[in-house]
Amino acid sequence: MGKNKQSLSIIKIGGNIIDNPVELTQFLADFSKIEGNKILVHGGGKSATKMAQSIGLVPQMIDGRRITDKPMLDVVVMIYAGEINKNVVAQLQANNTNAMGFSGADGNLIQSTKRNHPTIDYGFVGDVQKVNTPLLETLINSGIVPVFCAITHDKNGQLLNTNADTIASELAIAASEVFEVTLNYCFEKAGVLTDVEDENSVIKQINSELYTQLKQEGAIHSGMIPKLDNCFNSLSKGVQKIKIGHHRMLKNSEAICTSIEL
Amino acid sequence: MGKNKQSLSIIKIGGNIIDNPVELTQFLADFSKIEGNKILVHGGGKSATKMAQSIGLVPQMIDGRRITDKPMLDVVVMIYAGEINKNVVAQLQANNTNAMGFSGADGNLIQSTKRNHPTIDYGFVGDVQKVNTPLLETLINSGIVPVFCAITHDKNGQLLNTNADTIASELAIAASEVFEVTLNYCFEKAGVLTDVEDENSVIKQINSELYTQLKQEGAIHSGMIPKLDNCFNSLSKGVQKIKIGHHRMLKNSEAICTSIEL
Repeated sequence: MGKNKQSLSIIKIGGNIIDNPVELTQFLADFSKIEGNKILVHGGGKSATKMAQSIGLVPQMIDGRRITDKPMLDVVVMIYAGEINKNVVAQLQANNTNAMGFSGADGNLIQSTKRNHPTIDYGFVGDVQKVNTPLLETLINSGIVPVFCAITHDKNGQLLNTNADTIASELAIAASEVFEVTLNYCFEKAGVLTDVEDENSVIKQINSELYTQLKQEGAIHSGMIPKLDNCFNSLSKGVQKIKIGHHRMLKNSEAICTSIEL
Repeated sequence: MGKNKQSLSIIKIGGNIIDNPVELTQFLADFSKIEGNKILVHGGGKSATKMAQSIGLVPQMIDGRRITDKPMLDVVVMIYAGEINKNVVAQLQANNTNAMGFSGADGNLIQSTKRNHPTIDYGFVGDVQKVNTPLLETLINSGIVPVFCAITHDKNGQLLNTNADTIASELAIAASEVFEVTLNYCFEKAGVLTDVEDENSVIKQINSELYTQLKQEGAIHSGMIPKLDNCFNSLSKGVQKIKIGHHRMLKNSEAICTSIEL
């Protein structure tokens, strides 16, 4: 009590960086230069879809939502936890960052429950239930940089496909018990835009009041809504600071991005 | 100094267990019941070959040796570090074993060098160079049960396919600095046989003198030679005890198996 918490940066990168080897290498070099405690969460990119196609799987969609059936789960586990996670870890190690790659099953770090939706069977999709904060703290205090893929488990032997944005925000909420957490969502845009066609329309600061207004006006819509809902939820549960923007914001504190506050 | 070392069991399972879901489930339940510090090392099984075939890769062989070209490396990373490793970890977690899955890249736990053979280019195959013993000790002392797949890295960003028997023996040698290590190689036979057709021909104890004799007589040959060479090398470098046999030896100390001593 009264002791200052150590800081922790959690950075989530999307599939667009994963799909671009040159950009990924640059990002991982920049990530390695961030001082202090840090966690990387990575999305999947297109290689799971490509792999699924090349072994003849047909994507299962209901109401425009992708369903993770058993063959698709096997593919995402292979690609996210295997190919992407291990290559990211190896590149970070080459940058002298002591990265360690995790699914939620490893050390029971992220336990989830299979989604139980009244009308849609999403298949093997997990909603995060709890984070093993003591073990996460032990790892970070041992100098480890955890690298999470978007796979969790139900503690009954079942792996589950899980949204990477949610993983980042649940890790941030859990870690905020013991660290002062900054959460950074990196994607292909400079920030939250009021006009998706105009990179100059970045909202530099957004609070819940402005968010409600912009949703009503229709300036913020579709995929950005769950992302921002995640953000406000995280802030209300103890996360200190959240930014959304291009990953250049990580090395240039002057770079334009969206800061989110309650 | 003068303090008794804690014990550590290192268990290596081969592809035959991985390929048999019922046997794997039984093994993982038995493994979970082993008391004290432990590490699991798993081989690959047939699914990498099946996956390679289903995406149209043609196995590259030189002099009967499999060559790990880049497309094959991608497959073994996906299958060994992704599918197999994460499913094994999830099953162990369901058995209340706090498993954490690793490639050698994770935490730089096992660094290797790309094999440099005078006449054969094995491709992306690694020979183990060093084990990060302090981190391994920290993990084990935190109650973690490490689960290693047969993938390492060169610390320059390159993942490398690495023999699982060698990984087990190098982990055992390194860990014997800080633990009293028992190494168990589990495979489909009851032990080292003098007649491969006769399960009753198990050699119950073998030392280096008997090994030399049986090699000369041709009773021990082919794949068993590198396995036993690994064992005698490990014993000469500090490993306390080595057993080769069927995995039933883990739960039944009366089960017939081969004990190896210097």
